Amino acid sequence: MPMPMPARMDPVEGALPIGATFGVAAQTDARLAPAVNRFLARIWRQTGIIPSPAGSTPTLAIACAPCTASAVLGEDESYTLDVAPSGASLKSATLSGALHGLETFLQLIQPGPDGFRVPAVQIADQPRFPWRGLMLDCSRHFLPVEVVERNIDAMAVVKLNVFHWHLSDDQGFRAESKLYPKLQQSGSDGMFYTQEQMREVVAYAAARGIRVVPEFDIPGHTLSWLVGYPELASGKGPFEIGLHFGVFDPVLDPTREETYNFLDGFIGEMAALFPDPYFHIGGDEVNGKAWKESKNVQAFAKEHGLKDILALQTYFNQRILKILQKYGKIMVGWDEILGPDLPKDAVIQSWRGADSLAAAAAKGYRGILSAGYYLDHGRTAAYHYGIDPLAGPAAELTPEQSAHILGGEACMWAELVGAETVDSRVWPRAAAIAERFWSPRDIIDIDSMYARMEAVSRQIEWTGVTHRSSYGEMLNRLAGPRPAEPLRVLADASEARGLGTGRRTRDTQVPLNRFVDAARMESETVRHLELLARKVAAGASADAADLATLRAVFSVWAANDLRFQSLAEGNALLAEVKPLSKDLSAVGAMGIDILDYWSGRKPAPSEWVAAQTKEIARMQRPNAEVLLAATRPVKILLDGLAKR
Amino acid sequence: MPMPMPARMDPVEGALPIGATFGVAAQTDARLAPAVNRFLARIWRQTGIIPSPAGSTPTLAIACAPCTASAVLGEDESYTLDVAPSGASLKSATLSGALHGLETFLQLIQPGPDGFRVPAVQIADQPRFPWRGLMLDCSRHFLPVEVVERNIDAMAVVKLNVFHWHLSDDQGFRAESKLYPKLQQSGSDGMFYTQEQMREVVAYAAARGIRVVPEFDIPGHTLSWLVGYPELASGKGPFEIGLHFGVFDPVLDPTREETYNFLDGFIGEMAALFPDPYFHIGGDEVNGKAWKESKNVQAFAKEHGLKDILALQTYFNQRILKILQKYGKIMVGWDEILGPDLPKDAVIQSWRGADSLAAAAAKGYRGILSAGYYLDHGRTAAYHYGIDPLAGPAAELTPEQSAHILGGEACMWAELVGAETVDSRVWPRAAAIAERFWSPRDIIDIDSMYARMEAVSRQIEWTGVTHRSSYGEMLNRLAGPRPAEPLRVLADASEARGLGTGRRTRDTQVPLNRFVDAARMESETVRHLELLARKVAAGASADAADLATLRAVFSVWAANDLRFQSLAEGNALLAEVKPLSKDLSAVGAMGIDILDYWSGRKPAPSEWVAAQTKEIARMQRPNAEVLLAATRPVKILLDGLAKR
Repeated sequence: MPMPMPARMDPVEGALPIGATFGVAAQTDARLAPAVNRFLARIWRQTGIIPSPAGSTPTLAIACAPCTASAVLGEDESYTLDVAPSGASLKSATLSGALHGLETFLQLIQPGPDGFRVPAVQIADQPRFPWRGLMLDCSRHFLPVEVVERNIDAMAVVKLNVFHWHLSDDQGFRAESKLYPKLQQSGSDGMFYTQEQMREVVAYAAARGIRVVPEFDIPGHTLSWLVGYPELASGKGPFEIGLHFGVFDPVLDPTREETYNFLDGFIGEMAALFPDPYFHIGGDEVNGKAWKESKNVQAFAKEHGLKDILALQTYFNQRILKILQKYGKIMVGWDEILGPDLPKDAVIQSWRGADSLAAAAAKGYRGILSAGYYLDHGRTAAYHYGIDPLAGPAAELTPEQSAHILGGEACMWAELVGAETVDSRVWPRAAAIAERFWSPRDIIDIDSMYARMEAVSRQIEWTGVTHRSSYGEMLNRLAGPRPAEPLRVLADASEARGLGTGRRTRDTQVPLNRFVDAARMESETVRHLELLARKVAAGASADAADLATLRAVFSVWAANDLRFQSLAEGNALLAEVKPLSKDLSAVGAMGIDILDYWSGRKPAPSEWVAAQTKEIARMQRPNAEVLLAATRPVKILLDGLAKR
Repeated sequence: MPMPMPARMDPVEGALPIGATFGVAAQTDARLAPAVNRFLARIWRQTGIIPSPAGSTPTLAIACAPCTASAVLGEDESYTLDVAPSGASLKSATLSGALHGLETFLQLIQPGPDGFRVPAVQIADQPRFPWRGLMLDCSRHFLPVEVVERNIDAMAVVKLNVFHWHLSDDQGFRAESKLYPKLQQSGSDGMFYTQEQMREVVAYAAARGIRVVPEFDIPGHTLSWLVGYPELASGKGPFEIGLHFGVFDPVLDPTREETYNFLDGFIGEMAALFPDPYFHIGGDEVNGKAWKESKNVQAFAKEHGLKDILALQTYFNQRILKILQKYGKIMVGWDEILGPDLPKDAVIQSWRGADSLAAAAAKGYRGILSAGYYLDHGRTAAYHYGIDPLAGPAAELTPEQSAHILGGEACMWAELVGAETVDSRVWPRAAAIAERFWSPRDIIDIDSMYARMEAVSRQIEWTGVTHRSSYGEMLNRLAGPRPAEPLRVLADASEARGLGTGRRTRDTQVPLNRFVDAARMESETVRHLELLARKVAAGASADAADLATLRAVFSVWAANDLRFQSLAEGNALLAEVKPLSKDLSAVGAMGIDILDYWSGRKPAPSEWVAAQTKEIARMQRPNAEVLLAATRPVKILLDGLAKR
């Protein structure tokens, strides 16, 4: 079953075989050809079968008409896909619709009794929201173009359609300006995107039905601008690139015409690189300190009747708005930009909460939700999945008002991720958010979501993201020349914590090579065991196979610590997780005891249950910024035992 | 400890820390700069630490002088590497020597009590043989340039220095000829290397100290030539590209001047692309049928006094030799080329056995050994490791004669591998062969070899080869949308068989997507268990941790089949390994029983031991072209039990 779940999906009798004679016929313009080639290459990757070149009877017929230019906000993204045992038919009005249909088809391919096949089905699909984004912060840690592009490929798999490219922040200016070359030269460690690369990314995304919205965060988060151009600051330089994280005091000077001349030149330059009409100016987290301390700014504020910091920022935004309008751009900003006189076509990105989104919509502003979708916070897919852009305060809106809510964006801030780890922090959880944005509102079953997310996680792997493969490589690195197996057992049972939920940060120079960086955000292994444990705990008589599986895994955990301690000996990188490993073996041994009680060989004394419950609670506290997920299935069994 | 093991390596007190301030100073010409950059990038990959840019005190000083042009047969490849707690020094006379030293240094990096470090050491290293090759057959299944290049990177890690590029065969002509474009156009499925790509590969290899020796196999194995140029054949066309494998009858016509004119043009064209003086003309497996059946050829043979097929081929080779000499090339060929009047500078590549190598050397010809190094045969690393180019019949040679034996080549024929699977068939076993060619003859300890091969296998992964990462992806594909865990447990305990040792072939069109294609050639998991089982079986009192580990793994195996059968239900691709899975659970259960006997809870009746021994023998027979490696540790324990 696909993810996101289609709006309508009716199974039909039979299945379409996918073999070497599989072919595609597309009655449409040439722009679909590269997409069909990528589609055939994916079929090869997914099945190991090389589809034959054209000539054979086509198995999939694509009718894209009029197949209008895509990657525009609000375009018709719908498609229908009919799969019958004799062939399949995909119809859409736009290129984007056809691309979505091809992704759905790929997700339907599965092994069957006679080889690979697609079960026959009739699908009529369209998105619930028109703005379905992923933001990547490429400033705090730089992400090379290939990392950006492989994430765009993965976005296309789950029908996300906006790549929000956070290109500047205190820790690095990542876009090449030819007008103001000191922006990237002084404002970065030498790692930035050339203009050619940015054009390449825009074209790459467009070919996949994805809009690119660049963000240059102003007037705050601009330390990297000020290194090369200290005259833009309201305070005194010299400035240095931010190494640590948080809100810095220095910001742009809103009082000088030179600031606006500079920004006019810069925005004009960038506007030419990014064809999408929406342009993100950030606008968040101006703490006002530099403006309060500047006599100049204070005098200016008095003169213009700007009574506080917010009024100053509103003035600044009004000036920026005129520049954006000059270049045909519509302003997007974080919810701080919502001041008086903001024109009604601006788009508010809500990060501080659903309240500000609803408030903006009530005032007639269009908005997108990101509060609740911060992937760097390390929350579960289920948590993000439970956040609905139209729930909470937005539920009180009139239909006309709620139509202003365009969708949302998953956000990946990069304090704690780099090129090597970003994929595993975005995927697969972003797929659950993508489903929230695409599928009907009543698609909310958590178990179904997890089962399909695991499947799509492997699909996404075929596009080149390394969210699965980097895991083993990073564990091997931690193990050094010794076999990493005991480390893998431990990591499979652990989950990394996120920023704001237990993970600490220091600065951009700290290597991201710890156990917590390798560990996954959610453990598939443990989720499978939780399902088994729930089955066992609920059933009057437990399935022998389930019990045997649980016992075998608990035995592996119980036996693991001695091997792990030997691996970790003299290894500074593993020292911090020695207590975690000890707990894993303890929880494994506890699991075996519970199963022994379960099978009735011994009665379970209530004091014993109480002591174990306490011990599990202790083990559920984080250790080296990692959670011992393994405690969860054991806790389920223990609770079940207590209830018997 | 590195692989290949250095000629001389003396540990010293202390260790050199590898941190963010690590830097390299190279007093040498500019050609070393790209190698140093790759080296620093590898340090980042291996440690997660980004080495700081130049400026800091260098930690590694490279003195390469005179740093002569490299990638020439017989050049000085030696280097010395002194690592002290305060810094490291690498010295060599050639670029190749410096490259080898850098690879050794990378292999010495390991996690220590204070972070990553290199234990202090003094190394003086040089190769035992000057010709240490890897042959990749890119004809039977095409390997894209990126696959070739990542394998070249991996070759450099283990100090192999000849890439033997098998570019044409019956199943496909893979090199672009501008003089005779029908060679690649009619002789391939459209997949071939352009001249630009071949130049790129040669430069890529040279930068890594690796020579490229192209092979165009003539006069046999030439079906792909004859599709576009049937007039070159001694029999009648039309011809089609070979789809199945083996020896085809059609071969080049040795009697017509047009054949030699064509080959003169073609070899001249290729000679300009491949600067290495050695040029491989194949020459193997001419069955003579086409020549015997051709009146023309028979008349020619009679006229020239060529009494048999061998004489005809010798005549042909003599003509080719003149062409090669015209273009400044030295002939290399499979051992069939060793006919009368072969000039003494030709190099014989022995594939039929060590006898022919020794015979050639005795006659004064230089030779390289490939018999015993066929990676496609699916033999163990230990098997290949045990083959020595100077053992067997070569041991009888005089020192002068044995000096003619230049080394050897690992060969990867591509009947059963494609772009997706070739890496996992070459690596890590080729590393064991590389050590045989490089290290002193007395480096023969199997356990040491395996431990170091596992470590270098992970090192090689950082260069981009997919021998480890493709495993999970292929298993996921077989599992489809369901969790692949039970399949992984089965695959971890299984080993793929090779061509000629149990693996069947059909033709180039069969998808390589079966369990046997995903399974590894040797199971690391099982090898670790064998070591444990040997320890347990040998010791009077077994270590509790070892027993617990064995029992835990056996429990996982025993519990796996029920889960596997459920996964395999309705899955055509997994149907063939259902019996294998059943056996795995049976052998797991048997292992638990043995451990129960071992712990003395019950005595082991001799009839029971006999029955289990018989059952293991049955399970050791191949199933779906796969071996159940899991039987081996259990067999060790069972034998130990029988001896008690």
